Amino acid sequence: MNLFIADIKDQTAYLSPDESHHLAKVLRLTIDDEVMVTDGKGNLYKGKVAIAHPKHSEINRLEKQDYTQKRDYKIEVAMAPTKQIDRTEWFLEKAIEVGLDAYHPIISFHSERRNLNIDRLRKRAISAMKQSLKAELPEVSDLSTFQDFVLTHKNFKGKKLIAHCNPSIPRKGLAEVFEPNQNYLFLIGPEGDFSEEEINFALENGFESISLGDQRLRTETAALSCAIALQWLK
Amino acid sequence: MNLFIADIKDQTAYLSPDESHHLAKVLRLTIDDEVMVTDGKGNLYKGKVAIAHPKHSEINRLEKQDYTQKRDYKIEVAMAPTKQIDRTEWFLEKAIEVGLDAYHPIISFHSERRNLNIDRLRKRAISAMKQSLKAELPEVSDLSTFQDFVLTHKNFKGKKLIAHCNPSIPRKGLAEVFEPNQNYLFLIGPEGDFSEEEINFALENGFESISLGDQRLRTETAALSCAIALQWLK
Repeated sequence: MNLFIADIKDQTAYLSPDESHHLAKVLRLTIDDEVMVTDGKGNLYKGKVAIAHPKHSEINRLEKQDYTQKRDYKIEVAMAPTKQIDRTEWFLEKAIEVGLDAYHPIISFHSERRNLNIDRLRKRAISAMKQSLKAELPEVSDLSTFQDFVLTHKNFKGKKLIAHCNPSIPRKGLAEVFEPNQNYLFLIGPEGDFSEEEINFALENGFESISLGDQRLRTETAALSCAIALQWLK
Repeated sequence: MNLFIADIKDQTAYLSPDESHHLAKVLRLTIDDEVMVTDGKGNLYKGKVAIAHPKHSEINRLEKQDYTQKRDYKIEVAMAPTKQIDRTEWFLEKAIEVGLDAYHPIISFHSERRNLNIDRLRKRAISAMKQSLKAELPEVSDLSTFQDFVLTHKNFKGKKLIAHCNPSIPRKGLAEVFEPNQNYLFLIGPEGDFSEEEINFALENGFESISLGDQRLRTETAALSCAIALQWLK
């Protein structure tokens, strides 16, 4: 069944123009068709189309559903957008499927890309959320510099980890620093890795230095591996 | 440094036309340039360009290198190619980065794609191997039917697991069936999942039924998650 995201007020779901277009024009749903709808804040409903309009559709007769994909902890990843932006989009889609809560694009010293279409990424996040029937819309934050990001997340409640490939700075394995039921924030190095100054700046601000093992991973693969690893570490 | 794959005989590496083109035309390397070269069978060398020719380049003065990405077990995945083939290509690239040894494309009852450009996938496998500086070329086997695949892998030495979403057939979590230092062969359901008959056929032939958890994953994400999970399970 198709899932939509909407503003839900007084037992009625009001769809945005994008979502309305998808309902009425792409899927050609009509009045009384059964659909799923979420507010993106953890609430999931079954409902029926009340208005099928390409700009302002509505869903009502909402019945709350059990939402089983909820976790007790948050996974957040900060990664410099890749030179080929489709790699970042792939990461975002896959990471959302496996449970990412927030993606923070950052500009790092070795970043190959310093501009970003955030709206496009946010749309991709919505479609990944819908496709995997999730009821929580992951955050895609605005682009920020590495330094600003580290400073604004200094007090993040949970494990703050910086993954890099610089052998001259001591690193522990992700499995060694893992603790269950914690929130996780990963800083993932860009193509070309973080600079030594960046790593030290993160360490001074409470991040721990980690290695993801002997494999030579692309930046987006490293980021996705972190999100997946949390599901399997004990 | 760039890595090439070649036939290595008597301390000289002979490059294929594709690899020669890449060396001489794309990267514009010339005589005496330093490169890495592998036979794709676990041997990795540093060497110098001896002949930079767009069709038959050669590398010599080979010095054997330590190859640290070796594992004690094999990871093999059988998955129906996805309707959008770039999703399968993406899976293959990422899975090779994290250590996949073999990809077996299969035709399943609910397969949406029944033809496949194997050469294109094999080229993608070579480029992923080179990019992640691996010295073992992963196998991409010919397309086979689900039934043939199961029968020819009946005696696979290691854990044979079928991941599916059918709640009426008992499944264990991957973490429950995990054993260290075993080879793994995963059968991953297509978009639309395996049919009940297919699952039962696999179980009769020694596969164990597993679930990958509560997340609703696309087929290629499920396949990649399995390959990544093995790195983190204990």
